[in-house]
Amino acid sequence: MSLKERINAANDEAFRRIVAADPVLVDVAPASEVIPGMRDRLILHSGPPVDWEHMCGAQRGAAIGMCLFEGWASHPQEAERMLSSGAIALEPNHHHSAVGPMAGTISRNMWVWVVRNQAFGNLAFCRQVESFQQFGDYSGDALGALVQWRDVWGPALRAAVLRMGGIPLKPLIARAMQMGDEMHNRVVASSSLFANAVAPMLADCGLPREQLLSTLYYTGNHPFLFLGLSMAAAKASVDPARGVEASTVVTAMARNGTEFGIQVSGLEGEWFTAPAPRVEGLLLPGWKEEDAGLDMGDSAITETVGWGGFVIGGAPGILRFTGGTAEQALAFSRDMRTITTGISPDYLMPALDFAGAAVGIDIRKVVRTNLVPVIDTAIAHRSAGHGIIGGGIVRPPLACFTRALERFSERYRD
Amino acid sequence: MSLKERINAANDEAFRRIVAADPVLVDVAPASEVIPGMRDRLILHSGPPVDWEHMCGAQRGAAIGMCLFEGWASHPQEAERMLSSGAIALEPNHHHSAVGPMAGTISRNMWVWVVRNQAFGNLAFCRQVESFQQFGDYSGDALGALVQWRDVWGPALRAAVLRMGGIPLKPLIARAMQMGDEMHNRVVASSSLFANAVAPMLADCGLPREQLLSTLYYTGNHPFLFLGLSMAAAKASVDPARGVEASTVVTAMARNGTEFGIQVSGLEGEWFTAPAPRVEGLLLPGWKEEDAGLDMGDSAITETVGWGGFVIGGAPGILRFTGGTAEQALAFSRDMRTITTGISPDYLMPALDFAGAAVGIDIRKVVRTNLVPVIDTAIAHRSAGHGIIGGGIVRPPLACFTRALERFSERYRD
Repeated sequence: MSLKERINAANDEAFRRIVAADPVLVDVAPASEVIPGMRDRLILHSGPPVDWEHMCGAQRGAAIGMCLFEGWASHPQEAERMLSSGAIALEPNHHHSAVGPMAGTISRNMWVWVVRNQAFGNLAFCRQVESFQQFGDYSGDALGALVQWRDVWGPALRAAVLRMGGIPLKPLIARAMQMGDEMHNRVVASSSLFANAVAPMLADCGLPREQLLSTLYYTGNHPFLFLGLSMAAAKASVDPARGVEASTVVTAMARNGTEFGIQVSGLEGEWFTAPAPRVEGLLLPGWKEEDAGLDMGDSAITETVGWGGFVIGGAPGILRFTGGTAEQALAFSRDMRTITTGISPDYLMPALDFAGAAVGIDIRKVVRTNLVPVIDTAIAHRSAGHGIIGGGIVRPPLACFTRALERFSERYRD
Repeated sequence: MSLKERINAANDEAFRRIVAADPVLVDVAPASEVIPGMRDRLILHSGPPVDWEHMCGAQRGAAIGMCLFEGWASHPQEAERMLSSGAIALEPNHHHSAVGPMAGTISRNMWVWVVRNQAFGNLAFCRQVESFQQFGDYSGDALGALVQWRDVWGPALRAAVLRMGGIPLKPLIARAMQMGDEMHNRVVASSSLFANAVAPMLADCGLPREQLLSTLYYTGNHPFLFLGLSMAAAKASVDPARGVEASTVVTAMARNGTEFGIQVSGLEGEWFTAPAPRVEGLLLPGWKEEDAGLDMGDSAITETVGWGGFVIGGAPGILRFTGGTAEQALAFSRDMRTITTGISPDYLMPALDFAGAAVGIDIRKVVRTNLVPVIDTAIAHRSAGHGIIGGGIVRPPLACFTRALERFSERYRD
């Protein structure tokens, strides 16, 4: 078999594994209970590896927030000293089967969504999504939302989910995609469907009245509720496609606000990075271009499985968040077929006459066409201490793909 | 002022009233408590007036169902005798500020959604939507769903809605339209959002456990839950535009399966009818063209206010139900601007770059252009005794509009 034939067969196998995924929410639990290697004084972060010195402002702010949340430090300056001295370890979520939105920070007492890929048995984890701490805001209000999640909403959802014996996410995501969700920054339909799915069991698992009502209001009114689930589902779906010998399919795209990094199936364990790009989009009132930090977050795991920017043509409602026109969004979704391995049989876009999502980014095709993936994303501030400031479209640096392909060519030869 | 100027000013006023509407769900109640003139042994039906002799099979079946549901008859033959003898009165919903889906039958003990237009103070009513009795199925199973609605779900929702002090529908509908609902046959997003909105109060109004759980499951899983609300909201929105002297704006489009009828603002109280058309669309497996009944239902009240077929371009998810392509759906929504008076500032279509819905059908423009409204609709069987058999697109007979315009020309002169 020629190398080209080997690669094509390997990519078909990686694609097959991704589309065969069957993600099911099986638990909501403290990170320390479920994430492998989740030790004390460890903060997991989004993107490829980065040390404190090179960490961007927003991710630093989020890490400070985790130190305060965990009680490791009693004020921000103390947290900063601990982080800069190495007293707190920093590791990528992706090294722990986890993903996190924006700064993506996860520590022991952060409760996470636990998604099991029933087709392969692997687990994946994602923290809760909110609009402040994950963007670098470590104020009391920002941390208060994490405390509520840890003490009220997380445990309530855990009780309901366990009692339901898990919630299959594939059919829910497929339905939401026909309701204009793209599963990255537009998850209003999936959030609403999920809230309806858990409501009866929440009401029937003996929760105290205050906790029940608070959780019903929370789940029924959080427009980004499902993003953590979508990310965990995507991570659980793509992980079995890691390490397929000779596959050029991308298994992670992740950003820490300093660097954009990708991982490739046939080059398991390696990162291919380049400086993080700027996001082109819309800023919330009061913010200026120069306030914006660079691209950040593990949430591009959704694009890695063919959601997000890859199905944005079916989700024009997001354009009020990212900018652009419906025609451009349709073109993005069509374009992504050029750089991918196959078409999803499950995740369909009504606006494209029910065409399936493009799945399995092939680094060869990216480099050959100079066409890089489309990612829609939120925007954080360049400095620590702020919540969300905007949203837009970002394109990964081509260099990540060319470097990966160079390395692939060294490693695999005819 | 010339007649043309008078008409234009009148139409602007009718349009202004429609878009100023502020529909709020204020109650869920037995028809006998809230619908004006809702007396014993009266069945309200969809469409323009029709007697038993001219009633189509599906509407006859639904009327038989109501006689059994109310206990007026103990078997279908007895019901049929009472109906054909005139022992049971038949009147259009539209003569009682009400609307009903498909056969549209409402009797005393049918619980209805009660929507108040807060901008004008008028009330409108619509019965619950299901997939059997309203299509003419009078079997025990079909009637069982009505009993559940009357005894379990209706009262539970009443308790929650009253305790909430009403639920504003305008913002909910506007959001749902950005999630691919068109508010006629695709109401999955609005149904889901509505279920989210009522869940906490349902859980907190002291309902017995069985009733609470049954209602949470019902509201969280009924894909047409919101249609009755959408129809009542549309009826409440358009009724203040009735009786504007010299206005050529349509205030009702309604069908009884035998005739299609329209009403016009400046010709208040009159119906302009023509034989009901066939629906072009998709049949559920097992059904053939010749099984299909003709166009039926008051649900075209949604198109009358610029929803349904008028915003179908923003709701391509419905095409699996109606047939057709996304491009055709976009063209329908653009076309409707040709025959209407203005553009909604509230109900926007992301797929058309957030263009507003076309509102206020002008019979002059319809006759001048030969372009009739686009209505998406379900299909009933031609005979009594069946549930839903399909869905599709229907165009009203042009004759309704030409007759209305002839009458208008008699009544109003320069």
